[in-house]
Amino acid sequence: MNVTVWNENRHEQLNPKVAEVYPEGIHGTIAKFLREKGYDVKTATLDEPEHGLTEQVLAETDVLIWWGHKAHDEVEDEIAEKVKERVLDGMGLIVLHSGHFSKPFTKLMGTDCDLKWREADEKERIWVTDPTHPITAGLGEYIELEQEEMYGEHFDIPAPDELIFISWFEGGEVFRSGATFKRGRGKVFYFRPGHETYPTYYNIEIQRVIKNGVDWAINRDTPEFTRGNVTPLENLSE
Amino acid sequence: MNVTVWNENRHEQLNPKVAEVYPEGIHGTIAKFLREKGYDVKTATLDEPEHGLTEQVLAETDVLIWWGHKAHDEVEDEIAEKVKERVLDGMGLIVLHSGHFSKPFTKLMGTDCDLKWREADEKERIWVTDPTHPITAGLGEYIELEQEEMYGEHFDIPAPDELIFISWFEGGEVFRSGATFKRGRGKVFYFRPGHETYPTYYNIEIQRVIKNGVDWAINRDTPEFTRGNVTPLENLSE
Amino acid sequence: MNVTVWNENRHEQLNPKVAEVYPEGIHGTIAKFLREKGYDVKTATLDEPEHGLTEQVLAETDVLIWWGHKAHDEVEDEIAEKVKERVLDGMGLIVLHSGHFSKPFTKLMGTDCDLKWREADEKERIWVTDPTHPITAGLGEYIELEQEEMYGEHFDIPAPDELIFISWFEGGEVFRSGATFKRGRGKVFYFRPGHETYPTYYNIEIQRVIKNGVDWAINRDTPEFTRGNVTPLENLSE
Amino acid sequence: MNVTVWNENRHEQLNPKVAEVYPEGIHGTIAKFLREKGYDVKTATLDEPEHGLTEQVLAETDVLIWWGHKAHDEVEDEIAEKVKERVLDGMGLIVLHSGHFSKPFTKLMGTDCDLKWREADEKERIWVTDPTHPITAGLGEYIELEQEEMYGEHFDIPAPDELIFISWFEGGEVFRSGATFKRGRGKVFYFRPGHETYPTYYNIEIQRVIKNGVDWAINRDTPEFTRGNVTPLENLSE
Repeated sequence: MNVTVWNENRHEQLNPKVAEVYPEGIHGTIAKFLREKGYDVKTATLDEPEHGLTEQVLAETDVLIWWGHKAHDEVEDEIAEKVKERVLDGMGLIVLHSGHFSKPFTKLMGTDCDLKWREADEKERIWVTDPTHPITAGLGEYIELEQEEMYGEHFDIPAPDELIFISWFEGGEVFRSGATFKRGRGKVFYFRPGHETYPTYYNIEIQRVIKNGVDWAINRDTPEFTRGNVTPLENLSE
Repeated sequence: MNVTVWNENRHEQLNPKVAEVYPEGIHGTIAKFLREKGYDVKTATLDEPEHGLTEQVLAETDVLIWWGHKAHDEVEDEIAEKVKERVLDGMGLIVLHSGHFSKPFTKLMGTDCDLKWREADEKERIWVTDPTHPITAGLGEYIELEQEEMYGEHFDIPAPDELIFISWFEGGEVFRSGATFKRGRGKVFYFRPGHETYPTYYNIEIQRVIKNGVDWAINRDTPEFTRGNVTPLENLSE
Repeated sequence: MNVTVWNENRHEQLNPKVAEVYPEGIHGTIAKFLREKGYDVKTATLDEPEHGLTEQVLAETDVLIWWGHKAHDEVEDEIAEKVKERVLDGMGLIVLHSGHFSKPFTKLMGTDCDLKWREADEKERIWVTDPTHPITAGLGEYIELEQEEMYGEHFDIPAPDELIFISWFEGGEVFRSGATFKRGRGKVFYFRPGHETYPTYYNIEIQRVIKNGVDWAINRDTPEFTRGNVTPLENLSE
Repeated sequence: MNVTVWNENRHEQLNPKVAEVYPEGIHGTIAKFLREKGYDVKTATLDEPEHGLTEQVLAETDVLIWWGHKAHDEVEDEIAEKVKERVLDGMGLIVLHSGHFSKPFTKLMGTDCDLKWREADEKERIWVTDPTHPITAGLGEYIELEQEEMYGEHFDIPAPDELIFISWFEGGEVFRSGATFKRGRGKVFYFRPGHETYPTYYNIEIQRVIKNGVDWAINRDTPEFTRGNVTPLENLSE
C-alpha cells in the first residue's frame, strides 16, 4: 500500500517553535510512524516541482494525506484539480486539521468549509460517536489532548456520510472532528487535530486514528462504469 | 415567496420540435404553473445580460430552478460562482434533468455528476422511496411517463442526504431520480425528468413534485454563524 | 393541527421540587405554550386509562410529544406498540430528554439508546450543526442553559438521518442533542433538554425548537403503498 | 474469522424443487463457498435446540448470515432477542432475501420491513450505486440474474446508512437491494437476492458480494463505553 504524505512545510521553515516540535517536518513525523506500521510512504511538499504531486506520484498513491495552512493559495489550481480527479478515480484522501481550507478539500465538498478557531493552549477531548467504524478500532471512548487549537461549530461542510468523532473544548465549543465523505470512486476522511505548535502527531492514539484512516480509505478493485450514450439492455416496445 | 426559473433557452430557438412542445420555453411553462399555484415567479435565461442572474435577482430569489443542457460552458464562471455562494447563503436550488452537468450543480456536489443516457422514447416509472418526505406529498406510489430520455446509474453524485425517487427504465436501467443535498445554509433538490422533446413539465404529478420541491427548498430565518477567531465562552484553566 | 403531549406525570406528584417548577405538570407547560402558538393540543398521562392514548386519540393526533423517565416499564407493551405503529403510519413523534429509554423510542430505533448522565446543575450549550433544518429556524448559533442534567456520548442510537444539535457540557462531555429519524411514513425528532427539576421548558428558545419540531414532524398526504403479491406492470418475456 | 450461516431449512425438506437446487440446504451451499474462501464456518438451523444459536455459538460468531422465510414466527422471541443483543455488542449480521421479515432484522430496523413481491421467473439486474463500498470490490457495474423472485418498492426500512445496490426488474419495479445499517457496535448488511427455487447462491458474483459483506461486517477492537451515572471529567463551577 502506497501512502503519500503531503505537507505545506512552511511553518517548519519560518517558526522555530514548530521546527523544534517537528524537526523532520509534520510530513516527516507522519511518514515515520506509518513506515513503522509497514506502509510504503513517500512525502511531498509545496515547494517541490508540481508540489511533489506529479501525475505519476498521484497514479501510484493509494492514499494521500494532506496538511496545509498558511499557503493554500499557493497550491496551483491545476494540481489541486488533479488531486480532486484522482480522488474521484479511487485514491483515498485524509485531510488533517487546517487542511479544511485546502483547495482539494473545498473542491470536493462544494462548501466554504469555514469554522471558528482559537489558539489558547486549551484542552480537547475527542469523543467517539461511531464505534462500528474501523477508524475507531482499538480506541477507548475518547482521546484527550492537553493542548490544542480550538475549532468550533458551525463547521461549514456537507452533512458527513459518517460522523466518527465530536470534540469538546475547554472554552465552550464543540466540533465534528472526524467525518467521512464518499466522492466518485474515492473516500475522504477529515480529521481535526494537529496544530503545528503542539506535538499532536506523536500521540499514539492520534497515530492509530491516522493509520486506521489509511486502511479505511484505500479502495481496490472498485467497479468501473460505462457512461455517456448507451444502447438498451432490453428490447424496447415499438 | 420568490421563485426564479432559469433556462438555457437554446433548444427552443434551434429545434422546431422543442419549440412546438414548449412554445413559451421550458422556463415559461414552469413559471406558468408555479404562478397558478400562487408563487411570485421571475424567469431568467442564458442570453440575457449576466444570464438574467444579477446580484439583485439572486438576492431576492428564495428558490432558483435550473434547466440547462447544451450550453453549460457558456455560463460565465463568475455567475456560476455567485449562484453557488447564494445557495450557501440560504437560497434553495432545484436542478432539473440535464442540469446535472451545470456549473452550479457540479460545483456544489464536488463530483463529475456523469451518468448514462439514451434518447429512445422509452417508458420511465419513477418510484417513491421516501414517503415521509414533503416533496412526495400528494403523490401515489409512482409516476409514470410514457416517453422520456433514459438516465442510468452509476450517477456520479455524493451519497444524497435523502433519496426520494428511483426510476425504472424500459431498457433495463435504474436511476436515483430525486435526491436532496444540504450545502451551507441552503438546500438543493435534483429531479431527473424533463427532456426537452417531451411534454414532461405539463404532467400534473411532475408539476406537483416541483411545487413541493420549492416549498421544501425555501429556508427562512436560518441561523447565522460567527466564524474565524473567537474568544472563549468559558474561563480557561491556567 | 392536532398535537398530543404525553407525560408520565409521576415526578410532579412525588417530588415537591418538580411540582414547584411545573405546577401544571411538564405536559401542562408544553401544552400551554403550544396552544399560545395556535395548535390544537391535548394532553395524556400514564395513569389515565390506556395511558390516555386510545386508538381514537392516536388516530386524531398529528404529532405526539413524549416525556417519560422513572416509569417506562409501566407503559403497557400493547400501547407502546400502538404508538409505534401509528408513527409508521404517519404520525410525527417528538421524544424529549429521558424519553430516550421509552418503549416507543427504543422500539423505533432498534438499539439500546443508552447514554451517560449526571445531575450536577451544570451548564449546557446546545450548538446548531444543521442550519438548513427548519427545526433551527429563528435560532442563534447556540442555546445556553445555565443548569441542566448532563447526557454524554456514546448515545446508543442508529446514525441519525439528520444531526441538528450537539451539546457541550461543563463537565467535559458532548452529546448529539437533536436528531431526526424517518420510520415508515412517520418522522421522529429526539431533543435532549428537559430534566424535571429545571425550568427548561419555559425557555423561549427551547419552546421554539419544540414548536419547529411539531411543524417539521407533521406529515400530510403521504403516499400509500401496495404491498404483498402484485402482478407485473410490464409484459414479461416468455 | 468465524462465520455462522443460519437457515430456516424448511423449504429444502418440503419442496423437492428446492431440495434439488440446494441438496445440502441453502446454509450448506453458502457455508461451502465461504469455507473455500478460507473462513471458519458453522451452520445452524431452526429445528436444532435453541435454533443452533446457543450463547456460546453467538459469542464465538464474528458474522452471522441469516436466511429465513416461511417460519419466521417459529423463531423463539428469546433467541431473536439474543441475536439482536449480540449484534448491538459487535457481531456482524448479513440478512438475505426473505430474511427482511425475520425477527432479528425487524427488531433492529424498528419498521415493518414490508415490500412487494412476485414469483414469475423474471430477470433481475442489480446495479452498483456505491462504487466506494468494499462490498462492491471486484464487481462490474451490475449483476444480472436470469430468474429471480421480484421484490419491489416501497421497502419499509429506515433510510439506509449506505445504499449499495438497486435492482431493476423486468415487470417494472425497482428495489433497494443492498443496504447497510449500523446498530450499537455492530453492522448489518441486507442483500436481496436468493429465492429458494433459483440457483442464485451458486452465482460467483453473488458469492463475491456475500464474501465482501462478511469482510465488511466483521468488527474487531470496537471501543467499549461507560454508561450510566458518571463523575465529571472537568471541575464544575460552584
